Amino acid sequence: MIDRLAIIGVGLIGGSLSLALKKAGKVKHVVGYARNPATRQQALDLGVVDSIAEDIVEAITDADIVILAVPMGAMSETMAAIAPHMTDNMIITDAGSAKGQVVRAAKQHFADHLGQFVPGHPIAGTERSGPAAAFAELYQDHRVVLTPIAETDQDAHQKVKEMWQAVGAQVFDMSVAQHDKVLAATSHVPHILAFNLVNMLAQGEDVDAVLHYAAGGFRDFSRIASSDPVMWRDICLTNSDAILSLLAEYQQQLTEIEQAIRQQEGDVLIDVFQRAKQARDKRFNDPTLIDNSEV
Amino acid sequence: MIDRLAIIGVGLIGGSLSLALKKAGKVKHVVGYARNPATRQQALDLGVVDSIAEDIVEAITDADIVILAVPMGAMSETMAAIAPHMTDNMIITDAGSAKGQVVRAAKQHFADHLGQFVPGHPIAGTERSGPAAAFAELYQDHRVVLTPIAETDQDAHQKVKEMWQAVGAQVFDMSVAQHDKVLAATSHVPHILAFNLVNMLAQGEDVDAVLHYAAGGFRDFSRIASSDPVMWRDICLTNSDAILSLLAEYQQQLTEIEQAIRQQEGDVLIDVFQRAKQARDKRFNDPTLIDNSEV
Repeated sequence: MIDRLAIIGVGLIGGSLSLALKKAGKVKHVVGYARNPATRQQALDLGVVDSIAEDIVEAITDADIVILAVPMGAMSETMAAIAPHMTDNMIITDAGSAKGQVVRAAKQHFADHLGQFVPGHPIAGTERSGPAAAFAELYQDHRVVLTPIAETDQDAHQKVKEMWQAVGAQVFDMSVAQHDKVLAATSHVPHILAFNLVNMLAQGEDVDAVLHYAAGGFRDFSRIASSDPVMWRDICLTNSDAILSLLAEYQQQLTEIEQAIRQQEGDVLIDVFQRAKQARDKRFNDPTLIDNSEV
Repeated sequence: MIDRLAIIGVGLIGGSLSLALKKAGKVKHVVGYARNPATRQQALDLGVVDSIAEDIVEAITDADIVILAVPMGAMSETMAAIAPHMTDNMIITDAGSAKGQVVRAAKQHFADHLGQFVPGHPIAGTERSGPAAAFAELYQDHRVVLTPIAETDQDAHQKVKEMWQAVGAQVFDMSVAQHDKVLAATSHVPHILAFNLVNMLAQGEDVDAVLHYAAGGFRDFSRIASSDPVMWRDICLTNSDAILSLLAEYQQQLTEIEQAIRQQEGDVLIDVFQRAKQARDKRFNDPTLIDNSEV
C-alpha cells in the first residue's frame, strides 16, 4: 500500500496509473500536479486524482513515491524543480520513453539522492493524450520496463516494481542501452516511418483524392501518425542515437528492395517479404501465445 | 441479374464476390476455376461457388461475365488461355492491383475483343488468402475502382459497375495512371515499408527479445507485413514505376527527418509530425465522416 503518491503530469500515462492504483485499492492518496492550470482542474474534476497541488514542491511534499509522467522535453526541468526538496525516504520514478536521456538528467539533478531514483517506462499508450484519455485498465497485461543503474537502491527498485504489478503490468528489467535500442526498433522508428509517409502524401496536390482510396491496411499502418507531435519530437531528440542508427540501416535495406524492384528480381523480394511475414506472424499470430499487445 | 458468372481464381477476392452475389440474389450460377486442384475442391466443399470447372476453357464457356481474380503474376498467362475462347457477348473484368500492367496484357491478348474488357480493382482484402478466407461482406461499403480505357464498351462498363454495386461497393472510375499512383501511395508503398522494417528486425540477433516488447502501435503498423509474399512480389514487379517514384521521394524526405534529428531541429520535426497528424485525422478521425475503411 502506498500512503501518498505524487503524480507529476496527469495526462494519459500519469492519470491512468492513478486511476488503476485507486481501483486496485493500493494507494491511500494521490496528489497530482500539471504545469497547465486547466489540466490540473480537469484532472480534479474528472476524479483522476484525489487532490491537486498548485505547485510542484507542494505536490511532492510527504510523498512516498513520486512519478514523473511529464513529456520527455520537460523531464530535466522537472527534476531540477524537485531536486532541492527531495527527502531521504522519497522514491522517484518516471515514465519517459528514452532512458539514456532520463538517466543523464537524473545524474545531473539527483546526484545526492541517485539511489532513490528508479528509471522506468510503461510500454502502453494510445494516440490520445490528456487527463480525459486516462483509464484504469491501460496497464493491464502490458509491459513496464525498469532500467535500474548501478546506484539504484534495491528496495526502491522493488517498491516501484510492486506499484506497476499492482496495476496488472508485467515488469521487466533492462539496461538503459538495451531499452533505448528496443524501443527505437519497435516504437520510435515505426512512428517516424508512418509520420514520414503521411506527411509526404499530405504535401501532394491530390491529397484528398489519394487518401479517399486509402483502405484498412493504410489506416492501421498510419494510426501512429495521429500521435502527439510534441511528444514525438521530444522522443526523436532524446533517443536520437538509437533512432539514427536504425534509420540508416532501414534506408540501406529499403534501397536494396528498390534495386530488386528495378531489376525485377522477384526472388529477392520474396525472401524479404517471407522473412518479415514469418517474424510478424510468430510474434502476433501464434494462437499458442497470449497477445498482450492490445492498445 | 447475372445468368452465369465465371470466377477465375477462387481465393479471398473471387470467392468473396461469389458469396456476396449469391447472398444478394444477383447471380443464377457461379462457376469457379483455380489452377490448384486442392483449391478447386476446397471452394466447392465450402460452397463458395456453385460448381467447379476442371479447366479454364470449360469455366468461361457460356459465361456472361468472367472475372480474373488471379494473382498479378498469373494475369497475362490467364488472359492468353481464355483469349481464343472469348465470344462476342462475354464481358471480362479483373481484380488486379496494378492496372497499367493488366491493360498492357489485355491489349496483347484481347486485341479482337478489347471493348469487352473492363479493368477493375476492388480495394478490399485482409492479410488472409484462399477460399476459406472468403466472406460475403468483404465489399460492403468498400471502394472498387474501374479504369476503363478508350476502347472499353460503355455497356460492358455499366454491367461491371452494377455487379460491384450489387455487393455493396462504391464504384469509382479512374484513369489507369491515376489508379496506379494512388494505390502505390496508399497500399503498395506502405506494405513495402512495413515488410522492410520487420525484415530488418527479423535479421537482428535479438529479434525475439525486441519483438517481445512490441506493443499495439507496432502490431497495427506491421499488420500488413503479414500479407502474402507472392502477391506482394507480383504487385512490386507490376506497378514498379509508380512504386519506385514514391520510394525515392520517401527516402529523400526520411533523410531530411534524420538530418533534423541529428541537428536537434525540433521545429522541423514538429512541422512534419503535425502535418501528418492533421492529414491522417482528417481522413480517419473526423466524426462527421463515415469511416468505410474497415478491413
